[in-house]
Amino acid sequence: MSDSRPIGVFDSGLGGLTVVRELFRLMPGERIIYLGDTARCPYGGRSEETIRLFGIEDAQFLMDQDIKMLIVACNTVSSVALEHIEQRMKDIPVIGVVLPGARAAVLRTAERKIGVIGTVATVRTGSYARAIGKIDPSIKVFGKACPLFVPLVEEGMTDNDITRLAAQHYLYEMIDLGVDCIILGCTHYPLLMEVIQGTVGTRIQLLDSALWTAKEAQDILTAMNALSPYNNGGLEASRFLVTDLTLHFEEQAEAFLGNTIPSIERILLEDLVQ
Amino acid sequence: MSDSRPIGVFDSGLGGLTVVRELFRLMPGERIIYLGDTARCPYGGRSEETIRLFGIEDAQFLMDQDIKMLIVACNTVSSVALEHIEQRMKDIPVIGVVLPGARAAVLRTAERKIGVIGTVATVRTGSYARAIGKIDPSIKVFGKACPLFVPLVEEGMTDNDITRLAAQHYLYEMIDLGVDCIILGCTHYPLLMEVIQGTVGTRIQLLDSALWTAKEAQDILTAMNALSPYNNGGLEASRFLVTDLTLHFEEQAEAFLGNTIPSIERILLEDLVQ
Repeated sequence: MSDSRPIGVFDSGLGGLTVVRELFRLMPGERIIYLGDTARCPYGGRSEETIRLFGIEDAQFLMDQDIKMLIVACNTVSSVALEHIEQRMKDIPVIGVVLPGARAAVLRTAERKIGVIGTVATVRTGSYARAIGKIDPSIKVFGKACPLFVPLVEEGMTDNDITRLAAQHYLYEMIDLGVDCIILGCTHYPLLMEVIQGTVGTRIQLLDSALWTAKEAQDILTAMNALSPYNNGGLEASRFLVTDLTLHFEEQAEAFLGNTIPSIERILLEDLVQ
Repeated sequence: MSDSRPIGVFDSGLGGLTVVRELFRLMPGERIIYLGDTARCPYGGRSEETIRLFGIEDAQFLMDQDIKMLIVACNTVSSVALEHIEQRMKDIPVIGVVLPGARAAVLRTAERKIGVIGTVATVRTGSYARAIGKIDPSIKVFGKACPLFVPLVEEGMTDNDITRLAAQHYLYEMIDLGVDCIILGCTHYPLLMEVIQGTVGTRIQLLDSALWTAKEAQDILTAMNALSPYNNGGLEASRFLVTDLTLHFEEQAEAFLGNTIPSIERILLEDLVQ
């Protein structure tokens, strides 16, 4: 048995392309349909009600495209609205980025102290702490919102003095707290990996949820016998949709995807709003 | 003759409250109806097409509230979409923030070199340079986008090392260019006045468009005999509407308004989207 339908992936913007990159590394034969809500990003500072609304709209749009699996590649939506989305999409598996990242961190912490960095909304919900607590309640979790990291990445400032100073401002307290793992709880943060590692030192391991989310998707599709039968999947066979063709979107997409994006289609916000 | 209808003011978020503050200082008897599109802010990095669409939606919503004047208190929308909005609102005066700021700078520059700082969209359109060029084509205008300033203000970092380093990064080139006036072409920037002045030195004058926009509104209403007949205007008699009750909106509103906001009503994005 096999399933030739595409995998749906969405994020508030282009950051979720880090998950797409890992999906292609593990399953080069799959087709992806990606949605980035670039007309309304970033979601991370909005109210939970609005994040839920936007997340459900994004998910419903992809559901209407006949996908076999939905990946919520946005930490903010995964933290605030994953259950609401799962309730509405009963027919196909729905994966968020929080649980795979939490599992990977639990397997790696020797000190039993994990740090989580992300947007204001992600950290405020305590979603990673809850996910980790369900696996091992004895592990301590420390969250820290780093709201400047997204605009720094969006401006291409992945390695300069301002970024290093911001990293020190946010992360020195993580060192003092004695964590030995930090989950990068936002799809933008892998692009700051070098600056973050340089700030916290090599004793602390950084965990990028994107890789673990892609692994979970592979495990589920394998268990369901739902991998694609084709060998003609990959970038060229996939679709990339955004709600706004923002300035520099091609360079930004390339930075997240690690590859030139073949083409981006713009959809109207009206097609999303219910 | 007089006109008791309110003045409509909108911005992508809460920054436009700096204009409201100045309106109340000059015309304490007026009532304001303010709209902040906090579910979709910031506009500054989006495409011109999307900024036009959002700006027209915001303007139309206020028009439907029976206002006597519309103030576009958003530099990005004023730069990209003012003409489109004026074409649709033929019955009442429409004021943007660009022209009043440009006029004030022209009257003040001795060196005939003016700097303009703002969002990516504001600077890219060259709206201030065009407005200044129409008044005096011999004046040189230098624009610089400062995309980190909005998130720095939103995080309350109006006076720390990161903000000072960002200010140096963006503004040292203005000093080298020999400008003697810098227009703060974004409603968030007045909150960074001290850091910016400290960076560029006291030889350079900073111009906040908010004050000059309020003066223009007063001039027009006076000329039209359309000032409010009441003495019971002001904050308590005004309405403040947002599309999302984002985190910390009360503190942020207070920072921009310079006063406690009496109440904020949330409207649904569906009421705005046409």
